[in-house]
Amino acid sequence: MNNLIQKFLIYDSAEISDALDSLNIDGALLGLKPIVGNVKMCGYAFTVKYAQYQVKPLEAHGAANYIDDVPAGSVIVVDNAGSDNATTWGDILTRVALNKHINGTVVNGAVRDIEFIIQSKYPLFTKHIYMRSGKNRVYLENTMCNVTINQVVIKPGDIIFGDMNGVLVVPVEYAKEVLNRAYNIKQTEEKIIQAVTDGMALSEARTLYRYDKPWLQN
Amino acid sequence: MNNLIQKFLIYDSAEISDALDSLNIDGALLGLKPIVGNVKMCGYAFTVKYAQYQVKPLEAHGAANYIDDVPAGSVIVVDNAGSDNATTWGDILTRVALNKHINGTVVNGAVRDIEFIIQSKYPLFTKHIYMRSGKNRVYLENTMCNVTINQVVIKPGDIIFGDMNGVLVVPVEYAKEVLNRAYNIKQTEEKIIQAVTDGMALSEARTLYRYDKPWLQN
Amino acid sequence: MNNLIQKFLIYDSAEISDALDSLNIDGALLGLKPIVGNVKMCGYAFTVKYAQYQVKPLEAHGAANYIDDVPAGSVIVVDNAGSDNATTWGDILTRVALNKHINGTVVNGAVRDIEFIIQSKYPLFTKHIYMRSGKNRVYLENTMCNVTINQVVIKPGDIIFGDMNGVLVVPVEYAKEVLNRAYNIKQTEEKIIQAVTDGMALSEARTLYRYDKPWLQN
Repeated sequence: MNNLIQKFLIYDSAEISDALDSLNIDGALLGLKPIVGNVKMCGYAFTVKYAQYQVKPLEAHGAANYIDDVPAGSVIVVDNAGSDNATTWGDILTRVALNKHINGTVVNGAVRDIEFIIQSKYPLFTKHIYMRSGKNRVYLENTMCNVTINQVVIKPGDIIFGDMNGVLVVPVEYAKEVLNRAYNIKQTEEKIIQAVTDGMALSEARTLYRYDKPWLQN
Repeated sequence: MNNLIQKFLIYDSAEISDALDSLNIDGALLGLKPIVGNVKMCGYAFTVKYAQYQVKPLEAHGAANYIDDVPAGSVIVVDNAGSDNATTWGDILTRVALNKHINGTVVNGAVRDIEFIIQSKYPLFTKHIYMRSGKNRVYLENTMCNVTINQVVIKPGDIIFGDMNGVLVVPVEYAKEVLNRAYNIKQTEEKIIQAVTDGMALSEARTLYRYDKPWLQN
Repeated sequence: MNNLIQKFLIYDSAEISDALDSLNIDGALLGLKPIVGNVKMCGYAFTVKYAQYQVKPLEAHGAANYIDDVPAGSVIVVDNAGSDNATTWGDILTRVALNKHINGTVVNGAVRDIEFIIQSKYPLFTKHIYMRSGKNRVYLENTMCNVTINQVVIKPGDIIFGDMNGVLVVPVEYAKEVLNRAYNIKQTEEKIIQAVTDGMALSEARTLYRYDKPWLQN
């Protein structure tokens, strides 16, 4: 696995989010929930944008064939405008993704075949679960384009990170600085936890360890 | 168990939904979630319609006594207009349903006593979980009438099917044709899965096995 | 553990809610879900009220230092107006709460560090899960004040009860009468369950055991 991705996997979404906050970067993607328990996912965004058919097409199109082009180490980000009434991910795509060493998928929309996905432990984050196919309801508008989820822009190649709290995006040009700050934040929190476990008041521990600016080395 | 019901239980909700799609039948019931894990449910719809009291009644009515009339093999479909603030199902009804070999319950509304229901593994699908009773809040308006959930009409005696992806209704007059198409869809998907597992590109496998019309025999 | 709290823990939220209904008291708090499975929680309300910053502050404030003042046996009720986009509870507060023998927390808003909280089995009920910190987004407006969740008022010192069905508040001045009625309701329900298990029709069992007024001794 890629070195940068491995470094992100040391942290959790709270630490990375606090690092983004300290840089005034908005990276949290509201409303995306993990399907599989105890999951942690990180990879480079491969973006996919769907649009709804206005008229049902005469012929079905293989709207998910894009997966043949996704490189190992990616996280696929599927934007279907948060729609709850047609799925854009299921068991066949999950099997292909596992075979291709894709690191996970984020669906701004709905997914199906949850039982298989849970068994397979494939990292999947979604807004909705349903069973109705997207076939003949949505079409592939574009891949590797910018997509926007709840006002946050995701560029192809950005770092996508997910765990039990949800999903966030780290703009790839800030990846190293976010890692540096996440490291210091983690250190600060561990010192505070040790201090309160030893009986110190929380207010005192937070003052002592600079909870106001936990990304500073201390 | 009834022969038709047993045949449906071979499939999952995605396969049945795709068969319905191929017939242009809208059967997916948006927003209903399973309470119990690894669940699969099928049976004939016994429909129940509640309405809200406008004024709190002077006397309580046994709004759930209808269950004494529900035959074995049914799935009870309780329509309380999707309401989140009063329950129309709980532990006593679950115990009675288990005793009577009722196959499951779908609540377009809220349920309580989740802990017992999870333990009992009774197949229950609902929109909401809460603890406040429907007693003196709702009354039984009708049973064995047509009910509508998110614009989909359910007639008494229709096939109700549920699994981890959610719930759908198959109009009983289409049951056999849906089973025929679900069979072919399952075969097609298994061939595609085998092909991609063996390393074929998804686009190629889908063309080879007629993913555009998977309900055709091939 | 306090004697009154121990007595409440004999019952479940459905029984307590029915006792409140019989007294015409509205105590059910809509939309709060448990994070941890098989949970039952009871304690005295320690209320905390947050408000949103209109302008990002120049300096971070320790908005959660209130926890140093919370007595053992409390349930902390955090009101952040149901907001989904910034968390007001996480792993450090959970650790401090466990150390201080606080009985649980209810968040009308969002929480983070779910994975640790699930492991720790700390009773936590919330509307939303997310990872973005409330730091510099919300401030502590008040503690030990009345708070209102979905039109239900919670006073400091009221009894807060939660289980898998959700959370309710029992005004402390009604605690004993609610316990008396919950006792009778539980007896009535157990008799009905025994009767239907022995094969009696539900309608008959409910008439026999006065399901219309289950809080009466019978």
